[in-house]
Amino acid sequence: MTATPVTDAYTPTDRTVPTRSAKRAHYDRETVHSILDQAYVCHLGFIRDGAPVVLPTLFGRVGDALYIHGSTGSRPLLAAGKADPGLAVCVTVTHVDGLVLARSAFHHSINYRSVVVHGTAYQVTDEEECRMALDALVDHVVPGRSADSRPANAKELAATAVIRLDLTEVSAKIRTGGPNDDAEDMDLPHWAGVVPVAPVYGAPEPAADLAPGIATPGYLAAL
Amino acid sequence: MTATPVTDAYTPTDRTVPTRSAKRAHYDRETVHSILDQAYVCHLGFIRDGAPVVLPTLFGRVGDALYIHGSTGSRPLLAAGKADPGLAVCVTVTHVDGLVLARSAFHHSINYRSVVVHGTAYQVTDEEECRMALDALVDHVVPGRSADSRPANAKELAATAVIRLDLTEVSAKIRTGGPNDDAEDMDLPHWAGVVPVAPVYGAPEPAADLAPGIATPGYLAAL
Repeated sequence: MTATPVTDAYTPTDRTVPTRSAKRAHYDRETVHSILDQAYVCHLGFIRDGAPVVLPTLFGRVGDALYIHGSTGSRPLLAAGKADPGLAVCVTVTHVDGLVLARSAFHHSINYRSVVVHGTAYQVTDEEECRMALDALVDHVVPGRSADSRPANAKELAATAVIRLDLTEVSAKIRTGGPNDDAEDMDLPHWAGVVPVAPVYGAPEPAADLAPGIATPGYLAAL
Repeated sequence: MTATPVTDAYTPTDRTVPTRSAKRAHYDRETVHSILDQAYVCHLGFIRDGAPVVLPTLFGRVGDALYIHGSTGSRPLLAAGKADPGLAVCVTVTHVDGLVLARSAFHHSINYRSVVVHGTAYQVTDEEECRMALDALVDHVVPGRSADSRPANAKELAATAVIRLDLTEVSAKIRTGGPNDDAEDMDLPHWAGVVPVAPVYGAPEPAADLAPGIATPGYLAAL
C-alpha cells in the first residue's frame, strides 16, 4: 500500500491569483515555506468593529500550519477565541531584496519575496499542540533555541493564547532582476540598476546580568 | 498674526492605545515620521468581500499624508475609487532591530519599531497632487531620485491610481533593550541577550543595458 503523495503545490484560488503580474505568483510549497521560514515577523490582518487591523507579530510554522501567539488579553487572540467558527485573517510576510531604479519614475520598483495566506484562525485548545507551537515560535526566531531555554510553565501557558492558521489558500509573489524600462527611455542619462538590501546580524550582545562563564551558543553563529 | 502651531503629537484613540505594553506606545510626530520614512514597504490592510486582505506595497509621505499608488486595475485601488466615502484601511510599517533571547522561552521577543495607521483612504483626483505623490513615492525609496528620472507622462498618469491616507489616528510602538527574565530564572545556564539585525545595502548593480559613461549617482552613496 502506497501513501497518498502530498501534492507539492497549493491550489490557486480567486483570492490568490493576482490581477496583475501573474507571472510573479508561485504556489509550490518549497517556495512558500522558504519565504515564511526566513521571516521573524508576519503582518496579521483581521477585522475589528468593521474595520481592518494589521499588526506585526511573531509566528511559527509546523508543516502546513502557522502558529501565532500572544497574551490571552490581546485583541486578535481574544477575537479568535470568541469568534465562531474562528477568526477570518490574512497573514502576510515580506522580504525586501533590492531597490530597483529605472530611467523612468514609473518603472521604479523593489525586488521582494512575499507570501499571503488567507483563511480562518482557530484558537488551539490542546495543551500538547500549544507546547509544540510555542517551541516552533522560538525556533522560528533562532533555530535550535527552544531546546536551550526554559519551557513555558503552567502559569505561562495559561496566560498565552495560540491560534492556528492552516496553509491552504496561500501564494508567494517574487520580483527579481533589473529595471524594466521602456525602449524609448534607454538613451536617457539616468543611472539604472538595483541596490541590493538584506538583513544582517550584528555580534550577539550578552544581557548585562548574564552570569559569567556562559558562552555565546554555537547556534547563534549559524545565523 | 501668528499661525496656529501644529501640535507635535497625534491624539490617542481607542484604536491606538494598546491593550498591553502601553509604555511602548508613542504618539509624537517625530517618532512616527522617522519610523515611516526609514521603510520602503508598508502592509496595507483592507476588507474585500467581507474578509481581511494584507498586501505589501510601496508608499510615500508628505507631511501628514501617506500616499500609495498602483495600477488603476489593482484591487485595493479600484475599491478605494468605488467606495463612498473612501476605503477603510490600516497601514502598518515594521522594522526589526534585534532578536531578544531570554532564559525562558516565554520571554523571547524581538526589538522593533512599528507604526500603525487607521483611517479612510481616498483616491487622489487632482493631477498636481498625483504628481507630487508619485515624486514622494520615488524619493521615499531613494531620497533625491525623483529629480534624476523621467517623470510620469500622460499615459502613465492615466494608468496609475494614487490613494491618500491622512495621518490622524496613528501610533508607534517600540521595544528596545535586553530580555526581561523573571528573577527566579536568572541562575539558569542559558545564554541571554540580543542579536542585533539591520538592513544593509550592497554595492549598486548597474543594469546590464546601462549606457557606458553613466556613473553611479552620489545619492546612492548616502544610503
